[in-house]
Amino acid sequence: MPQASKVVLAYSGGLDTSVIAKWLEVERGCEVVTFTADLGQGEEIEPARDKARAMGIPDDNIFIEDLREEFVRDFIFPMMRANARYEGDYLLGTSIARPLISKRLVEIASETGADAIAHGATGKGNDQIRFELSAYALAPDIKVIAPWREWDLTSRTALIAWAEEHQIAVPKDKRGESPFSTDANILHTSSEGKVLEDPWMETPDYVYSRTDHPEDAPDTPEYIEIGFEKGDGVSLNGEAMSPATLLASLNELGRKHGIGRLDLVENRFVGMKSRGMYETPGGEIYARAHRGIEQLTLDRGAAHLKDELMPRYAELIYNGLWFSPEREMLQAAIDLSQQKVNGTVRLKLYKGLASVVGRKSPDSLYSEAHVTFEDDAGAYDQKDAEGFIKLNALRLRLLAKRDR
Amino acid sequence: MPQASKVVLAYSGGLDTSVIAKWLEVERGCEVVTFTADLGQGEEIEPARDKARAMGIPDDNIFIEDLREEFVRDFIFPMMRANARYEGDYLLGTSIARPLISKRLVEIASETGADAIAHGATGKGNDQIRFELSAYALAPDIKVIAPWREWDLTSRTALIAWAEEHQIAVPKDKRGESPFSTDANILHTSSEGKVLEDPWMETPDYVYSRTDHPEDAPDTPEYIEIGFEKGDGVSLNGEAMSPATLLASLNELGRKHGIGRLDLVENRFVGMKSRGMYETPGGEIYARAHRGIEQLTLDRGAAHLKDELMPRYAELIYNGLWFSPEREMLQAAIDLSQQKVNGTVRLKLYKGLASVVGRKSPDSLYSEAHVTFEDDAGAYDQKDAEGFIKLNALRLRLLAKRDR
Amino acid sequence: MPQASKVVLAYSGGLDTSVIAKWLEVERGCEVVTFTADLGQGEEIEPARDKARAMGIPDDNIFIEDLREEFVRDFIFPMMRANARYEGDYLLGTSIARPLISKRLVEIASETGADAIAHGATGKGNDQIRFELSAYALAPDIKVIAPWREWDLTSRTALIAWAEEHQIAVPKDKRGESPFSTDANILHTSSEGKVLEDPWMETPDYVYSRTDHPEDAPDTPEYIEIGFEKGDGVSLNGEAMSPATLLASLNELGRKHGIGRLDLVENRFVGMKSRGMYETPGGEIYARAHRGIEQLTLDRGAAHLKDELMPRYAELIYNGLWFSPEREMLQAAIDLSQQKVNGTVRLKLYKGLASVVGRKSPDSLYSEAHVTFEDDAGAYDQKDAEGFIKLNALRLRLLAKRDR
Amino acid sequence: MPQASKVVLAYSGGLDTSVIAKWLEVERGCEVVTFTADLGQGEEIEPARDKARAMGIPDDNIFIEDLREEFVRDFIFPMMRANARYEGDYLLGTSIARPLISKRLVEIASETGADAIAHGATGKGNDQIRFELSAYALAPDIKVIAPWREWDLTSRTALIAWAEEHQIAVPKDKRGESPFSTDANILHTSSEGKVLEDPWMETPDYVYSRTDHPEDAPDTPEYIEIGFEKGDGVSLNGEAMSPATLLASLNELGRKHGIGRLDLVENRFVGMKSRGMYETPGGEIYARAHRGIEQLTLDRGAAHLKDELMPRYAELIYNGLWFSPEREMLQAAIDLSQQKVNGTVRLKLYKGLASVVGRKSPDSLYSEAHVTFEDDAGAYDQKDAEGFIKLNALRLRLLAKRDR
Repeated sequence: MPQASKVVLAYSGGLDTSVIAKWLEVERGCEVVTFTADLGQGEEIEPARDKARAMGIPDDNIFIEDLREEFVRDFIFPMMRANARYEGDYLLGTSIARPLISKRLVEIASETGADAIAHGATGKGNDQIRFELSAYALAPDIKVIAPWREWDLTSRTALIAWAEEHQIAVPKDKRGESPFSTDANILHTSSEGKVLEDPWMETPDYVYSRTDHPEDAPDTPEYIEIGFEKGDGVSLNGEAMSPATLLASLNELGRKHGIGRLDLVENRFVGMKSRGMYETPGGEIYARAHRGIEQLTLDRGAAHLKDELMPRYAELIYNGLWFSPEREMLQAAIDLSQQKVNGTVRLKLYKGLASVVGRKSPDSLYSEAHVTFEDDAGAYDQKDAEGFIKLNALRLRLLAKRDR
Repeated sequence: MPQASKVVLAYSGGLDTSVIAKWLEVERGCEVVTFTADLGQGEEIEPARDKARAMGIPDDNIFIEDLREEFVRDFIFPMMRANARYEGDYLLGTSIARPLISKRLVEIASETGADAIAHGATGKGNDQIRFELSAYALAPDIKVIAPWREWDLTSRTALIAWAEEHQIAVPKDKRGESPFSTDANILHTSSEGKVLEDPWMETPDYVYSRTDHPEDAPDTPEYIEIGFEKGDGVSLNGEAMSPATLLASLNELGRKHGIGRLDLVENRFVGMKSRGMYETPGGEIYARAHRGIEQLTLDRGAAHLKDELMPRYAELIYNGLWFSPEREMLQAAIDLSQQKVNGTVRLKLYKGLASVVGRKSPDSLYSEAHVTFEDDAGAYDQKDAEGFIKLNALRLRLLAKRDR
Repeated sequence: MPQASKVVLAYSGGLDTSVIAKWLEVERGCEVVTFTADLGQGEEIEPARDKARAMGIPDDNIFIEDLREEFVRDFIFPMMRANARYEGDYLLGTSIARPLISKRLVEIASETGADAIAHGATGKGNDQIRFELSAYALAPDIKVIAPWREWDLTSRTALIAWAEEHQIAVPKDKRGESPFSTDANILHTSSEGKVLEDPWMETPDYVYSRTDHPEDAPDTPEYIEIGFEKGDGVSLNGEAMSPATLLASLNELGRKHGIGRLDLVENRFVGMKSRGMYETPGGEIYARAHRGIEQLTLDRGAAHLKDELMPRYAELIYNGLWFSPEREMLQAAIDLSQQKVNGTVRLKLYKGLASVVGRKSPDSLYSEAHVTFEDDAGAYDQKDAEGFIKLNALRLRLLAKRDR
Repeated sequence: MPQASKVVLAYSGGLDTSVIAKWLEVERGCEVVTFTADLGQGEEIEPARDKARAMGIPDDNIFIEDLREEFVRDFIFPMMRANARYEGDYLLGTSIARPLISKRLVEIASETGADAIAHGATGKGNDQIRFELSAYALAPDIKVIAPWREWDLTSRTALIAWAEEHQIAVPKDKRGESPFSTDANILHTSSEGKVLEDPWMETPDYVYSRTDHPEDAPDTPEYIEIGFEKGDGVSLNGEAMSPATLLASLNELGRKHGIGRLDLVENRFVGMKSRGMYETPGGEIYARAHRGIEQLTLDRGAAHLKDELMPRYAELIYNGLWFSPEREMLQAAIDLSQQKVNGTVRLKLYKGLASVVGRKSPDSLYSEAHVTFEDDAGAYDQKDAEGFIKLNALRLRLLAKRDR
């Protein structure tokens, strides 16, 4: 429980982080700086200013920022270059947001002379780890306060009582227990807890907030084209777009067609399994498109090496190690592979499915001349295959002779 | 071009392998043994007997076998335990069939005193490699004849002329060029070539043979339950089934709901890219279900190690190295992990999507007591997280202090 | 700080663990059971009985066991099959002993009805982790007491004062500070701390206890032969030996010839770097011999897979994860590869060097017929190489054509 | 057997490549360009000029170059950054030279308008692959002539007869068979074949050419210091040196102290095992020093990732894939890790041993404050270890509870 005098808090403007802000002041005697970021979570962030003011935080200590472009450009897209999926499926929507928040927290701490940061993540989850490892990696002497690991406000009732006692407005809809917990940003919305805690029970309909039900999606498929340059998306249907604009546009398409739902039981870094429902509408479309353009433009050696490195890379991000030498090493390898990942992918969107149906590229490695079933005009000598097989077989034959 | 006196041919009963049978006799002076297997390709295999007889092959030299159970039990299911997907997507439907065919070819060669085997794969593809590496690994002194790499019947016209010249019946529908080439077994049907050779053009509707179009699939989702024991499927909707019966049943479900279509540009072992359309209806459902039950029953360490080994494992199978020490080593590791992969997975099938919506197991590692947002009665001490993070951060902090 | 009523202590008989035994009784109110094992550390273990008795521990609570054969057979040899070296060099002598000690601790706890175990490892090192992860993996509800993380006896003076106050005999030579700290067993002796803490300073001569200085070693090389069966050593110079006898004999040879010294700066699991001096005389000889016999008998695919898996495997053991599904999975893969690792290796020992100079095997995969510079009588067709190279080159050529 | 009109030959000036030069002209009708490089093999290269002239090759077609600095700087040092050892031991001395030779061959082909290159490697070895894959990767349309795979001069007698018939001088000492075959450059000398073909027989003394026998080495150890910057050696005993000068100086030290001998049975890419004797005097010292400085300056995450990637990286170089996307990706990751690999390593050289005995760095990550056995003034809180262990153990405990 570190002693701190001035603390930068990751502040959403909601009840929980408002209580934390006040608690840091009242119980820990800290001057509080609030930091609220727009990461595309779909909520206004300006109201957080008034809420902070209402708690007596001076304007100089209130930071509100739109980080959407930086988030997509410098975090989501680099991760997508790796085709990262944790445990085979999860597109890491929450994991990838934490390092950016921590980066700004410690930068603001440095600017404002704060000696600590604070966050509202609990002691059971992965987010505390991601916030804190990122912070320590960037500012090794920073102090970190994680009230949920320390205080005794462990029931909803206690929290609300404490809020009222300290003149924090409690919205009507926050008085009851939420039936599940969510996190949202431009890449995804995750839901977990309560009604989702039994992994055998299907996710209730009301949990979904980012995608229409596939059953309610249009009966007619929609075709789209995504353009890529150096492994990053740059256009939709021929129209150039900034990273965040592109992802937001794909989100709308994904929402409409019910794409990107994932019901997952995953392994947390702290050692327990948890069950979550992820909705990653644009991300799912983007991820499939990226693989599609790589199919045409990546050499086999590069592609297979990427596939082998991916699980480790995804695990690093999941575990909060974005700012680590090993993630940066893998990124260097991955980024090198993307230099010619240029071209256009065509996808069909239909009732939950995002299917690659075509891809073209000025940097294609696909050689119709070689692969054709027709006369290949000598591009490929089928007799070469015999020697190729013979020498690949040699060690197996020596082995078989021994082991017969 | 090895000299052989008696050769076992992988014989489908179709025109191409009929020509090969005759060619081996006429041009290479071989006594021919035919081997025709039912791997669930959906065609009768008995007619191959009469076709072989019609070419003068004596009954003792005609082998016709139903290998469906062995194929699913000893090849497909072990591969599925690994969650194998080549290049991120391909379920290896063709690759996994070749080793079994080769195994029987060399066994029949040994039984009949043949000194060679022959197959109808071309010199451009992967199948020649898979047939031959498997054969050499099991019978190091076997000779292999691959007529497509040797003969001059390189056009359809030449092939048909040769067939007619040698009294081989040419079905009407084989006179023209097929608009694409296919391979089928109980796991999948693949289509490639001709109309599929431009990877920008969407696959025409008439290519699909194993799945209904998602647009034509039922408007109502269907829920199913698959039971697993030791990592292998054992039941469907509570009914115990043999491996091949289970997969065939899932194929019907997948066909009906338009599940398992994959349009892929892939990297062949011979070094060129090719574009294929795969339909793996039951396999796709099964693969998702297997991951679903693993989520609940596999420890994180085992699960992550499996994910890291998977791309290599899939590459080995794709490259024809099923019968290799390294594949067997990986299989030993994978199989050990499956001892407690028991339980039931619930899936929703709907217009191309097979989604896991629930899973339960007597061997679940999911602990609601630990993960709950409610009071956990001391199962987990949130204060432990601080030390966990602190020591995971130590190296990063030392690094940051140095590099500031 | 768990409350325990009866605790099994890993007891060496030395001052530190004697203080711990008494402290557990006096300060924590525990009934104490002592466990002392002979792991080949080169000290008598029987004296520990009288020391335990002298502290009032009843005979039923005193366990003294010779675990040397089990240690070598079930822990060291399996690890050696993997050619495990942590961070390129370290043969894991300390790491591999901890799981066995923990296994016996929790077994004795079960036999004696104890609810806790205790060890004398500090809070800065790896051993606490190894002891505790092993214990928790085998007995998930066991309590663990690690006095060095809890008590205030943090200086030598305080420890000795406490000992005298509680009638524990303090040997003369323990009154001063030792100039470094050691751990020993049949595989190695490690030394660290104090005089070794500056990684630029050469290790003083008096630190070495297990090996003669290479400069003092015989001026004449000595040749030895080690026999292997299924990857494990079974004989020395033609004489069959049990695992522990073989390793002890190699230790004598290694000591005489100054083999197996390693000055290492390594990365601890807790996140800091430490500098150690390891002496692994017999282990170094054995490790080189094992690689020697593998060279002749392992297929390339198996050998390369083993090499790729090794760093992970070594890290698992270093980090205390011997009893983990992932270590067991890797072991299954490794063990499968050793089925034909049979034969004899000849080594030259000379002034610190253990060099493989010959190897032979009934299961050799080395084919003089193939490799010979002389006429190979058709064993190998050099023309096959052209096709082999051509197809391996194909993707590189397509790439070069694109990128020119 | 490609038709070529003008060919650049890797020409040593020796009998074999002289015969090849003439054969290319006489039998294949090619204009011949010779390329002779000084890679530190220890032989004069200028005499090759007169020999080429004596065969009638015009001066414009004779290329003689000193590539030693480029070789060490751009090939050996980058490889050493990876700590590359093939199959655990081999420092890849031959493998790493081939890409540079091929690079110059195809560059000279481009400059001189040649359409082909030729080399003197046989069809059984790895070098043909390395030469050709490198050439195709850089010049995809280049033709490659490998006379040893094509001609019928398969006996020494035939070769000499052909030479004499074509007025090529045959040195007296080349008339008989050499008892073994060698390859040399600044990194190593390899010897194989004939007297080395029985892997049980110790290498005869007369095989060694680059190192004195350890038994004949000085009786007194010699201490040296190697300075590193960004992972590359830059000085010896405080004296700044170019890459090639540094390696040459280490070679002299290694020769004197008998360092760097390796008797290896290895797996060739063509599928057979071969036995070689490598002498890598300076390289062995350098490799150990590099690991020594990394111990102090590399973060654990970076170090372990490097160790896991190394076997693959080494295999790529061994297999001739230096110029491949995947080697370049790995190199990018490795090079990024070397930014702070600065400092000085102290080694003791004695009778075959090169032992790191000290290392220091301005960029050390070693923290005596953390690791000390003395009072650490709060640098490290031992209580953190409990939480660290508890959460690392959680999954193992859940597993044990299930599996009991």
